[in-house]
Amino acid sequence: MKKLINDPRAVVDESVEGFGLAHADLVRVHPDPLFVSRAGGAVPGKVGLISGGGSGHEPLHSGYVGRGMLDAAVPGAVFTSPTPDAIIPATQAADGGAGVVLVVKNYTGDVLNFETAAEMCQAEGLDVRTVLVDDDVAVEDSLYTAGRRGVAGTVLVEKVAGAAAERGDGLDEVEAIGRKVVANVRSMGLALTPCTVPHAGKTSFDLGEDEIEIGIGIHGEPGRRRVGLEPADALTEHLLTPVMEDLGLAEGERVLLFVNGMGGTPLSELYIVYRAAARILADRGALVERSLVGNYTTSLEMQGCSLTLLRLDDELTALWDAPVHTPALRWGA
Amino acid sequence: MKKLINDPRAVVDESVEGFGLAHADLVRVHPDPLFVSRAGGAVPGKVGLISGGGSGHEPLHSGYVGRGMLDAAVPGAVFTSPTPDAIIPATQAADGGAGVVLVVKNYTGDVLNFETAAEMCQAEGLDVRTVLVDDDVAVEDSLYTAGRRGVAGTVLVEKVAGAAAERGDGLDEVEAIGRKVVANVRSMGLALTPCTVPHAGKTSFDLGEDEIEIGIGIHGEPGRRRVGLEPADALTEHLLTPVMEDLGLAEGERVLLFVNGMGGTPLSELYIVYRAAARILADRGALVERSLVGNYTTSLEMQGCSLTLLRLDDELTALWDAPVHTPALRWGA
Repeated sequence: MKKLINDPRAVVDESVEGFGLAHADLVRVHPDPLFVSRAGGAVPGKVGLISGGGSGHEPLHSGYVGRGMLDAAVPGAVFTSPTPDAIIPATQAADGGAGVVLVVKNYTGDVLNFETAAEMCQAEGLDVRTVLVDDDVAVEDSLYTAGRRGVAGTVLVEKVAGAAAERGDGLDEVEAIGRKVVANVRSMGLALTPCTVPHAGKTSFDLGEDEIEIGIGIHGEPGRRRVGLEPADALTEHLLTPVMEDLGLAEGERVLLFVNGMGGTPLSELYIVYRAAARILADRGALVERSLVGNYTTSLEMQGCSLTLLRLDDELTALWDAPVHTPALRWGA
Repeated sequence: MKKLINDPRAVVDESVEGFGLAHADLVRVHPDPLFVSRAGGAVPGKVGLISGGGSGHEPLHSGYVGRGMLDAAVPGAVFTSPTPDAIIPATQAADGGAGVVLVVKNYTGDVLNFETAAEMCQAEGLDVRTVLVDDDVAVEDSLYTAGRRGVAGTVLVEKVAGAAAERGDGLDEVEAIGRKVVANVRSMGLALTPCTVPHAGKTSFDLGEDEIEIGIGIHGEPGRRRVGLEPADALTEHLLTPVMEDLGLAEGERVLLFVNGMGGTPLSELYIVYRAAARILADRGALVERSLVGNYTTSLEMQGCSLTLLRLDDELTALWDAPVHTPALRWGA
């Protein structure tokens, strides 16, 4: 195992510490239990928005803490849900007096831990809502999931709900906007290579030199099937067709097209996939009105990508365009 | 070779086409000869700033075309300099009537081709200046270079000189600011893995399972030496010590600390390196006043990183902080 790390057991702590040093103007790192909050603390009167989950998907979620997006993030061990003892203080730190929305990716461990934390916060009088993200159309149930997995669409939920909270929407409204994004976002990914969890020291699964896993999960969970070395245009079609079908995308509809890198894929390849996806969408008569291309929901050094479509209307477009200032996503501010 | 590509010979054309589709609000792609310019065209009265070089280092340079940075970029074939027939129209496209500054990384092919293009533009009455970037302290001469190589420090030259041009500085001033950044920026990198040039189809060099190349070039050129699997803290010291010494960094000086990913390294590992570098700099009494962490000057899917220090003063800090709006770097706009 070749990695830029010190002690495999200290990877998350040291990485988040470095993250805090690099972005001290935006975030504050709380070391024990570990969570990240906005440098200025909770914003009085604003609905708080938090998320979290296993580490190894950076910049998800800590990279999205800041103005117009998350108020706090809770990184667990690599590919392992954070526990309620960290989620509870993060939720409290995000509370500006108007309640808190938790954005949770649909994995059994995350759902259980965030629900437990939410119940304990509720018991102490804090109004907490949960928005569950399950955008991955690849498989219904999976290794760590009942129902569909939450993957890169989570970034869009956090951006849009974060913008709603920032403009002063109430708790019901922020929750509803989060659910609206979930209802209109679909994703599917593929892997060219596996990745290696530092404390495990070996690759998360095996993939032959001439095999590509279609429908991969962000922890290396099995997808739909394996194919051989096909051209990027064909691979893009394998991802985009189920995404469009599941979304029920009709001619003339407006979308945000998001090509997400899994961590180890060159940006140039992501743009080749973007080109292929944009052509397929144009043929279908869809209007690509916004784009996002890069490493936003990763699986350590895995090579591969995922495609996400978000159906846009005027409200979602305005919230997407609203100013955001976080370590990993920034515009208009 | 496993890559998200179609025809290995079409990688650059298709990738830049996808890039243009994804960022049509910011850039325009000119296909033959291939170059990228600002969507709005040259800004009348503003000094033009352009750069270019072999592809494979994305988002360098096309990702930095936009307001407050480059007016045009010229991508060559992978790891191969663009030729004057593309550099000349890019230079002309960047010309707003106040002359053009070319930012050139110090590789023999780039220097030759950009100089030829500059001479031909000069002959037609266009005032063209060249700023040569040679920030890599690892080796004096190298596989494709007489003198030092230009690496990730190029991003900082482009940002700062771009901000000077945007605020209305004249040709002499923009050239001088570019040279001032070059005089105050130093870098050094390491590789955990090689990368594979698509049209070559095999890795650019060999590196054992327990070997790390210290002082690697961004095309996989040999560095200073190979070491075994050392912890990130020790590896960071191998890079930062020569950078600090070559810069002559004194106690109390202010710096921008830039941890650059080579393309295939997880962001979490870059932050572990950032943490180590910040500690070393604190011990040295240097003040880290700005940071940049991410994949900004890559080598395809190579795993590894480079460290760059830029000595800051009030002028450079203000130009660094100035608004920028490009596909890969954006703030304040």
